[in-house]
Order: sequence, then C-alpha cells, then structure tokens
Amino acid sequence: MRMYDIIAKKRDGEGLTEEEIKFFIRGYTDGSIPDYQASAFAMAIYFNGMTEEERATLTMEMVNSGDTIDLSAIDGIKVDKHSTGGVGDTTTLVLAPLVASTGVPVAKMSGRGLGHTGGTIDKLEAVPGFHVEISNDEFVKLVNKNKIAVIGQSGNLTPADKKLYGLRDVTATVNSIPLIASSIMSKKIAAGADAIVLDVKTGAGAFMKEEDESIDLAKAMVSIGNRVGRKTMAVISDMSQPLGRAIGNALEVQEAIDTLRGEGPEDLTELSLILGSQMVVAGGMAETLDEARQLLEENISNGKAIAKFKEFLESQGGDASVVDDPSLLPQAEERTELLAKESGYIDEIVADEIGNAAMLLGAGRQTKDSVIDLSVGLVLHKKIGDRVEEGEPLLTIHSNDVSLEEVKKKLYENIVISSNKVKAPDLIRTLISE
Amino acid sequence: MRMYDIIAKKRDGEGLTEEEIKFFIRGYTDGSIPDYQASAFAMAIYFNGMTEEERATLTMEMVNSGDTIDLSAIDGIKVDKHSTGGVGDTTTLVLAPLVASTGVPVAKMSGRGLGHTGGTIDKLEAVPGFHVEISNDEFVKLVNKNKIAVIGQSGNLTPADKKLYGLRDVTATVNSIPLIASSIMSKKIAAGADAIVLDVKTGAGAFMKEEDESIDLAKAMVSIGNRVGRKTMAVISDMSQPLGRAIGNALEVQEAIDTLRGEGPEDLTELSLILGSQMVVAGGMAETLDEARQLLEENISNGKAIAKFKEFLESQGGDASVVDDPSLLPQAEERTELLAKESGYIDEIVADEIGNAAMLLGAGRQTKDSVIDLSVGLVLHKKIGDRVEEGEPLLTIHSNDVSLEEVKKKLYENIVISSNKVKAPDLIRTLISE
Repeated sequence: MRMYDIIAKKRDGEGLTEEEIKFFIRGYTDGSIPDYQASAFAMAIYFNGMTEEERATLTMEMVNSGDTIDLSAIDGIKVDKHSTGGVGDTTTLVLAPLVASTGVPVAKMSGRGLGHTGGTIDKLEAVPGFHVEISNDEFVKLVNKNKIAVIGQSGNLTPADKKLYGLRDVTATVNSIPLIASSIMSKKIAAGADAIVLDVKTGAGAFMKEEDESIDLAKAMVSIGNRVGRKTMAVISDMSQPLGRAIGNALEVQEAIDTLRGEGPEDLTELSLILGSQMVVAGGMAETLDEARQLLEENISNGKAIAKFKEFLESQGGDASVVDDPSLLPQAEERTELLAKESGYIDEIVADEIGNAAMLLGAGRQTKDSVIDLSVGLVLHKKIGDRVEEGEPLLTIHSNDVSLEEVKKKLYENIVISSNKVKAPDLIRTLISE
Repeated sequence: MRMYDIIAKKRDGEGLTEEEIKFFIRGYTDGSIPDYQASAFAMAIYFNGMTEEERATLTMEMVNSGDTIDLSAIDGIKVDKHSTGGVGDTTTLVLAPLVASTGVPVAKMSGRGLGHTGGTIDKLEAVPGFHVEISNDEFVKLVNKNKIAVIGQSGNLTPADKKLYGLRDVTATVNSIPLIASSIMSKKIAAGADAIVLDVKTGAGAFMKEEDESIDLAKAMVSIGNRVGRKTMAVISDMSQPLGRAIGNALEVQEAIDTLRGEGPEDLTELSLILGSQMVVAGGMAETLDEARQLLEENISNGKAIAKFKEFLESQGGDASVVDDPSLLPQAEERTELLAKESGYIDEIVADEIGNAAMLLGAGRQTKDSVIDLSVGLVLHKKIGDRVEEGEPLLTIHSNDVSLEEVKKKLYENIVISSNKVKAPDLIRTLISE
C-alpha cells in the first residue's frame, strides 16, 4: 500500500477502504508518512469529502492511535456533552450538577481554556479550595458515590488527531466537515463516553457562522457516534450573541449558581434544560425528552440541583459556602458601567468580539502560558431585541488595574443599536438525533 | 503576506495576484515555505485551476527562480521544439537539421533520457566521435555558422520547478493542466527560446491519454507562451502506437537519416514536415505553413537536409560517414524476428508497453544511473491497420546477450491482432496557434 495511491483515490472521488484509512493514520502517527502527503490528502478530503463509513473509520483510527479512558468501573451510562465553543457559555457548570441530580453519572474530564474565558477547570477553580488533582480511583469512587466528579486531562489521547489538526491549522484545511467531525468525536470517544450530547453553535460567535453548515456538522458527528456504537444527539443553538449574561470565570460560576436555583438568564436556563433532557434520556433516567425536562425542572425548584452542586464542590475540596454567599468568589476591584450612547433597540452583540474584550481584561488566555484573572469579565444587561435608552447601562465591566479605553472602544463597536424594533434570535434552531 | 492565506484563496476559488504567486515561488525556492504548505496549495490548484494570467505569472516566476540562457548573440529568431514525450519519437533528430537547412537557427540544449530510449544526446552519441562537450562560445559560433548545434544542459535552470515537480510527483498533484503547462513552458523559456513549437502527444503511449486533455494542455501552453512574448504553436499528434518504426538509439539515428533522405516512415516524415513548417514560419523563413512545407520538402529532395545533418555531425566531432554507411553505427549482435501467431489486422500496438520492452533490452535507462546500450531496440514491420499473416514478422528485436523470454511475452501481449479490418489512427489531430 502506498500513500500516493490513497491520495490519488481521494483526489479522484473514489471511496477509501478501512485498510487505507488505517494505513494513513498509523503511518502519519509513526512518522513514516510525511506532512506533505498528509496535507495534500487533507486538501483532497476538503474538496471531495468522505462517506459516513470513511468518517467513522477515521474517527476510530484516531481513537486507537493513543490512550483511551476506561470508565467501565463507573455504574450506569456515562453521558458526555460537547460544545463547539462560544462566548459566555456556562452550560457545563449548570449541566454537570443538574444532570447528576437525576442519577445520570457525569464523569467529566476537562481541560484549561484558550480564548475568551478559561475552561471548565479554570472556572471551577474560582471556588476557593476546589481542585481537580485527584487520582483515577478517587475519580471513579466520587462518580459512583455522588454521580459527579471532574478530573484534569491526562494520558496521550488521540495523538493522530493532535498531529493532523496541527497540520490542518497551517494548510487551510481545518474547515472540512468530515475532518472537524472526526476530530471532535475521536476525543469524546477516547475519553470514554457511552453517549454524547452535542451543542453545535451557529452564528457570528461560533466556529460555524452559517446554520446549514452547523446542521451538516451536527449530522456528521451524530452519524459517526451512532455508527461506532455511542448514542449521539445534537442541538443547534444560537451563538450570534453571548449566551447568558456573564463572560468571565467567577462571574460564570455565580451565573451557574443562579441558574441552578432557577434564577438564571432565560437563554442559559432553556439551553441547559434542552441539553440536559437529552443527557437524561441518553443516560436512561427518562423515556422521553418531555419526561426528562420535567425531572430537571423539578430538581431546580426542589433544590436538588443546587444541593448537588454544593456536594460536588465540597467533595473536591471547594468551599461550598460560595453558593449562599457569592461575595466569597474572587471579586474584581472596579466595576464600570458602559452606557448607551443612543436610544433604540439592541440589534447586534457580536459574540466573538465581546469575548475578545473579556480576554483583554484578563478573563481568558491569549497563549497557553498566559495567566488568567478569575475575577474579571463582563455582565450584560441588555441582549438582542431589548429596548435601551441613551445613558442606560448596556453592561458592567469587572476589571482590575487595566486601562479600559481599548476595551470600551471594542465594546461600543460591537454592540449595535437600531432605531427600529429588533426580533431576538431563536435560541434553539433544531434537534438532530440521527 | 502569509502562505496560509494564499492556500485559502486558491482553495476558495479566488484569483491570486502576481505578488502572491511571487511570494509562493520565492518562499518555496528559498525554503521558507515548507513542503506541506506547497503540497496543499498544489492540491487546491488541482481542484480549482488557475487563470491564464496566474499561469503566465507562475511560469515567469519559475523562470526567474534560477539561471536563464542568453541566446542573444545568435542571429535570427531562435525556435525551440518540445514534445510531451512518446515512444520511438525520432522527430528531434530529423527536425534539427531539416529546419536548420532553411536558415532558421536551431540552438538545441538537450539532456539525457530516462525511459524507453535515451535522450537526444544519447541518440546522437551513437554516431562515433560525436560529443556535446563544447563551450558556450563555441556553441554560439557554430549556430551562427551552421544554423545548428547541440549542447548539454548546464546551469541551474528553473530550480523552483524542479523542487515543485518533485513534490507533486509524491503527492498525486502532477496531473494538473496549469501546473504541467507552466512546468514545461518555464524550462523552454529559461533555455532562451524566442519561439516554441509544441508537439503534444495523445493516446495510450502519451502522458495525456485523452485527446480533449491533450488539447487543453496545448491551449494552456500556447496561451502562456504568447502572454509572455514567446510566439508559441502546438500540434496534437497521435501516440496510440510508437511513431515511425525504430525504437532504440542507433536505430533511431538510422531512421532519421532515412527520413532526411526522403525514405523514412510515412508518419515520422509527415509529423516532421508539420512541426518543421511551424518552426520555419515561427523562425521567419516563410510566410505561410504551405510555403514552409514546400521549402522543407525541397530541401529533402535536393539533398540539403541530409547535407546539413552531415555538416552538423562533423562540426561536433562525429563521423559523418555513418550517413552513407549506417553499418558504422553500433550494431546489436542478435536480430530476432517476432512472428505473428495468427493472421488478421493489427488493432493495437500499446506504445508505452512496447517502449518498456525496448528498455528491457537496454535501450533506455530505468534509473538515472543505468548504462544504456546504444545498439539495441526494436524495428516495427507492421503498424496499426496493416494486414499480417500468421508466421509473418511483426517486428525485429535487436539485442545483445539477454534472454528474450520476458521481452517477447510483453511484445505479444501488447500487439493485438483483430480478425476485422482496422482503420489506422489519424496522425495529426489538430493545430493550435492561439
């Protein structure tokens, strides 16, 4: 078998066999297939795509290229959630305890973030004492006992995907649905999930700006998951504006607490219920999405959800009193209101640029080595469609010792006010389950 | 400027500016752009093509990436000929003296061959004493005096093309018309031609198997040449079977001698007259193709063509008496006739496989370091459409000390005899001049 012939077949739109895809992934991982052949191959895939069978094979070969996590010691169906990434996305903090409160095991392996805010671990570390440095045994024990635990990423998961992604990133071949879908799914499968719920974002702040592209990506991932025996479902949700109101690590923890109490922003609450219902059904704790939603709503109103969050924080060394007294979370020294310069209706809140403004405050990492400030960020008071009067606050900037000039400029540029009435975007676009 | 953006533009079907193509060729030549970006770029070009303007720019940037030959000291319009390669193609040996006999300067830079037979220099070296080790001054002097000289390739011509071709060869991106066209044209232009006549082969023995592809390639090259100020014309000619009857170095010299005397095979004679007429018109020695053809036919019948060949051989140390006594050329020890196993009409003589049979005899180089045997080869007695009786010779094998078993097997497999009448293929398919 020669890599040349595999490239030529894909270039000519022919299907690849399992053996050919195996040959590529193994050879590329061990270095016997050079980057210049892999990049030409990726570009041929960019143009000619991959069949569903090819995508599933590619995914499993990437899974098999490295370590895989064995969660079999955990009772029940392990359900993982993945979001394609957005701004101010606090859903994981809400979903983990909310879903665990219904009895579905949430065994979360998480990383640190690069971008607008930190990752899930960074956010949780805003709770004094909380840590993820626990052993695998402890992790399994905690999930079996409490139905929830979070551990830092370890092991050499999907090295083939890491190497290929790095190459795609410099050869203009990232934006290919089969390659994105197999990359994401390989990581989730290697991390041991039995079932996967996907939150595919669409709009200005998302990786996929167009709804039809987001749907294609979601379908591709759902197909891969179900073909390789992991029940997979997806939600297409709006990311034309930031989700919820908080962007920043401690601010998002506080927002998650509010939401678990039933006092959170409407959009974050709704998306958490939609994704949570899918997780509860996938986890076998409800028959239908309606039944699952009812269960989740009950656990919010009867306090089980917030109690689960407290239990979770305590079990990993965190100070659970932050739940009742959020002032114990890191607080920024300065709070500055950004006032509307004109009256009208909010027409745009360009999500990724608002995220970049939060990063300028120190809420996120610009490079892997940046140190983040857990206390800073933004809290929106207006969202798309809201009426605003001149001089009324659009949002509050939480900052420490930085000049706000550039931040304010970016925020004003990216919050557009119209004199005409504006309709709020639909939060949930569609559900995909096969 | 970033190579990433240039790849992305081509991937998205956008046009590239002159600066962007320059950036690529310069960066790729100096090594600042890595192979893996160049191969992804080549694959994007494979799918999205290049405009005529992009092709011309790419060609001239490849020309400018290395040395160029200055032929300005030679009087007149220097016309070069290029063939896309075939089997038993003796046209250069015929054309060089034939065209020179009309006064058009033929300043030929040539190389050694890799494949079925040697290159033009290898073939000419079958003439005892002939050599191409002459200085540039001597070369210019000879062309001005005799209108003909051949010199070996020297200098670092089109290094960007060499590097890119090597990469395309291992990444399944050779077969792209814009890339093939710019590669060929850059070499001809760097070698100093004022005008270029192209012989684009089509059929089983050619690089382009389909006539429409051959026409596309010819049009692409003619457009590049004319855009960059080199008058360029092309002929599409048949290569479904070997051209002429001889395949082998000394055998082809003998065939060229016959043809220059007016006693050569019909197809080789006709193609030489067609290409020669274009060269004579391009060289300004005739107004029309008809007029040029008449001049060439006259010079064959009045002996000027063969006299020019003798003069040329002598002026570069060769023994011109081979022209009158071909037995002075290297002779193979054994001659074996391949007899027809059945009666009928010749339906196929698969050109490339017949060429491979000649290579097995030692007529061509399998690798750059192979030593070739100038005396061996094949002489066809039948061509497509000819009637043959069982036991009649199809061809004669000229060999030295090799087992003929494999050669004969290959020849029998690739000469197909049909019981039905077969029409000979048209030699000249079309002429392209703009």
